[in-house]
Parts: sequence; structure tokens; C-alpha cells
Amino acid sequence: VRRTLDVEVLADRIKRGEPLGLARGISLVENETTGFEALLERLDGRMGQARRIGITGPPGAGKSTLTAALTRYWLEKGLTIGIIAVDPSSPFTGGALLGDRIRMNELATEEGVFIRSMASRGSQGGLAIATREAADLMDAAGYDRVILETLGVGQSELDIASSADTTAVVLVPESGDGIQAMKAGLMEVADLFVVNKADRPGADRLEKEIAVMMSIRKGNAGKLDDAAWRIPILQTTASEEKGVAALANRLDGHFNWLLETDRLDERRTVRRLGRARDALIRRAQRDAERIWQTESPESLAGVSPYGLSRDLYEKLRADQRGV
Amino acid sequence: VRRTLDVEVLADRIKRGEPLGLARGISLVENETTGFEALLERLDGRMGQARRIGITGPPGAGKSTLTAALTRYWLEKGLTIGIIAVDPSSPFTGGALLGDRIRMNELATEEGVFIRSMASRGSQGGLAIATREAADLMDAAGYDRVILETLGVGQSELDIASSADTTAVVLVPESGDGIQAMKAGLMEVADLFVVNKADRPGADRLEKEIAVMMSIRKGNAGKLDDAAWRIPILQTTASEEKGVAALANRLDGHFNWLLETDRLDERRTVRRLGRARDALIRRAQRDAERIWQTESPESLAGVSPYGLSRDLYEKLRADQRGV
Repeated sequence: VRRTLDVEVLADRIKRGEPLGLARGISLVENETTGFEALLERLDGRMGQARRIGITGPPGAGKSTLTAALTRYWLEKGLTIGIIAVDPSSPFTGGALLGDRIRMNELATEEGVFIRSMASRGSQGGLAIATREAADLMDAAGYDRVILETLGVGQSELDIASSADTTAVVLVPESGDGIQAMKAGLMEVADLFVVNKADRPGADRLEKEIAVMMSIRKGNAGKLDDAAWRIPILQTTASEEKGVAALANRLDGHFNWLLETDRLDERRTVRRLGRARDALIRRAQRDAERIWQTESPESLAGVSPYGLSRDLYEKLRADQRGV
Repeated sequence: VRRTLDVEVLADRIKRGEPLGLARGISLVENETTGFEALLERLDGRMGQARRIGITGPPGAGKSTLTAALTRYWLEKGLTIGIIAVDPSSPFTGGALLGDRIRMNELATEEGVFIRSMASRGSQGGLAIATREAADLMDAAGYDRVILETLGVGQSELDIASSADTTAVVLVPESGDGIQAMKAGLMEVADLFVVNKADRPGADRLEKEIAVMMSIRKGNAGKLDDAAWRIPILQTTASEEKGVAALANRLDGHFNWLLETDRLDERRTVRRLGRARDALIRRAQRDAERIWQTESPESLAGVSPYGLSRDLYEKLRADQRGV
């Protein structure tokens, strides 16, 4: 009874937009603490208002600086912003140089901004799911925009970014690995490209490179119909807040396109179904992990790994029969 | 009966080192085709002879070129080499420029070399497990060295590389993101650092940077005892095969250190237990995924994702009760 009460109280605090309540809720989700799914379930009806923006790209592309610049821009327009940083090199997660980190921390103290970093070590699929659920909580807490900043290399990182309504892929000139980054799956998730640090030489060349790669891809995909989204390529210099208004404008443009073509509802239905699937599989995993922790031997004596896993799975089933 | 027979026949073909049998076995594992665990179980006693080397690092570090150079070096010594490429930008996986790819393909036709690329898209934790099991099969097929080439960003990619006996982290000068790459978790997995493309300016500086970071880390970890492994930093120019003999030498050195300090047995026990745990969790996941595929609705009408997942999990349990 006490636990149910806690969840109820916490849900109300999150609905009221209390930052401390939200922080606690995200911790519950991150640690899969008993009751976290009840909390998410209780807040389910409150979700769906926030626009979710994924910002991804290779290390050093300036994703955090861009996130900060967008946040300041939206703040001035009177919007509230939640930020989830999964990039281990992000100043938000403490992974950057001191100066960057201090600037980001200043942002964190602004009214209307909520920043949360999620550890990218440890849990595998777990992180991707928890990150999406943290975004759900920010959504339920009433934030107008939720930014998911992830490193654009690695499957689960890309999954997180592409779970947003709109995903911006950030690249920089001079990196020389524009093509390499694209090969790493970034092209498939981009609703929008940003050539950041555009004051450096090579910005136009990179923009052209991206355009060529996009046109090859478009060619492969067949002719685009009129309602198709034409992926824009924008140049920004986030450190000087240049190009940020245009970027915000294009992000809105993509959101409106989703809305007008009924794709928003479609994406969100898919997202909610995905959440159910993830929760189901996580539950099965959790039970399997529990029996591993209580029943596994310290070494394999005479049994193969697969024999052991089969025995333990039988045991798990037998236990569940008793439930 | 027929299926059991197939597994037996296939296991024998793999034991004899037949490349086509090995390729088919890896496909079974990759697709989790019925019988794949029986195959792995049957070959269990044949594993443990190969030395497994993880090669990881950021995109563009020249990991594939280094892998190819090492392979040629070992070939000349009369060794056989299995290569698993998970890096989506690797020439082995078809993600690189044409010239690179052609050179790698030449290697693939050499007697004593077996190359397999694993798709890094799709399965999340699944890829990491399947990759390790593919290495198990190469081991059972009698390859002396198994190289796991992965992109050193992203959790599951790092997991794969660090599942090897020895993990080499490859960095390049000029990339400017040496520190960023380190932050991404590369430092924790390195048994050995390679500064590749060492003919470029900045190689010595990068080597010093790494040394400084290592000494800071060592300082944090307390004093090293005599038996501790001192992580070497090597310079190579893989495209010209420079430094490759020294690298092979150090890889052997690390393996011998593992052997002499009983850490090899320790690592391998942990690896085998990990395989059992992974197989257990995968089995639970697979059952959950199966019920999702057969029982999930097309949209959520009036039920929250968490309510739906709970209902389906109950159904799964009920089904298992009947088994």
C-alpha cells in the first residue's frame, strides 16, 4: 500500500512539473526500481505533448554546444526544455573539458531547463529503453521540447536518437570522416543535417558531399512523392549561436510536416507499441537475470554454457509455474 | 531426428575446418536458427585454442588496414587467421572505399584466412553475443588467431572488443579527438595502444597524451604490483606494414602474461559463464519476442504500453505452464 502511495505522490509531483520529482522518477526508471512501470503507466495519459528532438553525430561535432544554443533560443521564446545527454564525451555528462562543462552548468540553473545525463556504460539495450522512458517522464512533466543528445556511433545510440520525432545529424568540416560517419548508419536516421563549425574551411564541401550522398540514396529509393520530406542541410556555428534560429525553424518545419501528413500519429503509435514490446522483453530478461544471480555456479564443471543455460531456464519456468 | 543429424554433420565439418561449414555455422548463430545452440554445445570441447584479439578505435583509425597487415604477418609465420568485422565502415563489411575493399578481398581468397562481417544494425545485445559465438566457431574450426574488429564507440561494440583475450585500441594523430575517444570508454578496454598512421605529424604527441592519461589512471588505481600488465603504446604505419612485427610481438607478450599469471584461465572461465548467462537471457527474450509477434495488437486502444506488456507476460507464463 505504501509503495502504491509513493508512486501516486511522485506521479502528481511530476505532473506539477516539480524538477526534484522528475529527477527521482528518472532515477527509478534508470535503476528499474520496483514501481517504475506503475509510475510510467500512471503518467501515460500525460505524454504526447512534448516535441522530441534527437541530436546525434560523431565525437567532437559540437552536439552539446548546439543543444545549448537551441535551448537558449527556445528559452527566449518562452518554451521549456528537457535535455537528455547520453554522449559520454558531452559536457552535460561531465565528459568534456572544464570550460565547456561550466558553460553547460550555467544553463542547468536556468528556470525552465531540465538536464539529465544517462550513463552509457553497463546496460546494453537497457540504456536505450530507459532513455526513451526518461524522455516520456519529461514529456509528462510538461516540457515543450525534449532533446536527446547521443553519440552517433553504435547501434543503441542511434536507436535513441531515432526514437525522437525529429532527428538532426551533426557533422563538422575537416573531420575527414564525413563519409565514414554516414556509413555508420547516420544517413538512415537523419531528418535534417547540420554542418556545424561552419566558419571552418570545408563547410561548403561537406554540405555538397552530404547532398550527393542524399541524392544517390534518393535515387536508390525510387522517386519521391510530393508529400515526401526533403532533408535539409543547414550550416551553423553553434559556439556563436549562428544559424540556430534557422535550425529551430526547420525543426518546427519537420514537426509540422509530420503533423500534416499524419505521420506524427503513426510514429507515436509505433513508439507506444515499441514501449510495450520493450517492457515485455525487459520483464522476461529481468526474471532470467534474477535466476542467474541466485542459481548460477561459480564455474562450469563438466557442463557446457548452453547446457547450463537450458537447466536454469527450466528452473525459471518451474518457479513461474508456482507463481 | 533429421535436424539433430544436420547439427552433427555440420559440427564435424567445422571441426575439420571446412570454410563452407564454418560459414553456415556462423549464419545459424547469427540468425538464431533452431539448432544453433546444439551446434555450439557440440563444439564446446573444441574451443579454447585460438588467441582472440580485439582491434577497436574510432572511425578512420585504420583498423582494417592494421588487421590486414597483422593477418599477412601471421600468415607468413604459418598461422591461420579468422577475422570478424563488426565495424560498419570497415572494408571487410563493404563499408569502405572501393580500393580498400578490393585489397581486403584479395586477403579473403588466401588459404588460411577466413573473413566474416557481422551486421551491426538490427539486433542490439544480440549482435554482441552472436559475434562472440562466431568467434567460438572459428576457434572450434582451428584458426590460430581470431581478430574481432569493431568500431570503438558504442557500448556493445566495446563489449565485443573487450571479450577478446587481448584488446588493442587504435588511434591516429591529427584526429584531434584522442581525448574524446578515450572518454568514450576506450581506455578501460585497452591492453595495448596503437598509434597508427605514425608517419603523420603528431604521432609522438598523441603517444605522450596517451601515456599521460594512462599514468593519471594508474595513479587513481593505486600502486601496480610486479605482476601487473604495463600497457604498451606502439606506433605503426599499417598501410606500409611498418611496426606490425613489433605489434604482433607485443600481442604475444600480453598473451604470455595472461598465461603465466593464470589470468587466461580466469578470463576464459568468466567468458564461458558469460556465454551461459547470455544464452539464458536470450532464451527468455526469444520467448517474449515470440509472444509479442503472435499476440500483440496493431495499436493500443485504451491500454497503456505497460498494461499491455503485463498482460502478454502473463500469457507467456500461462503458455509455459502448459509446456
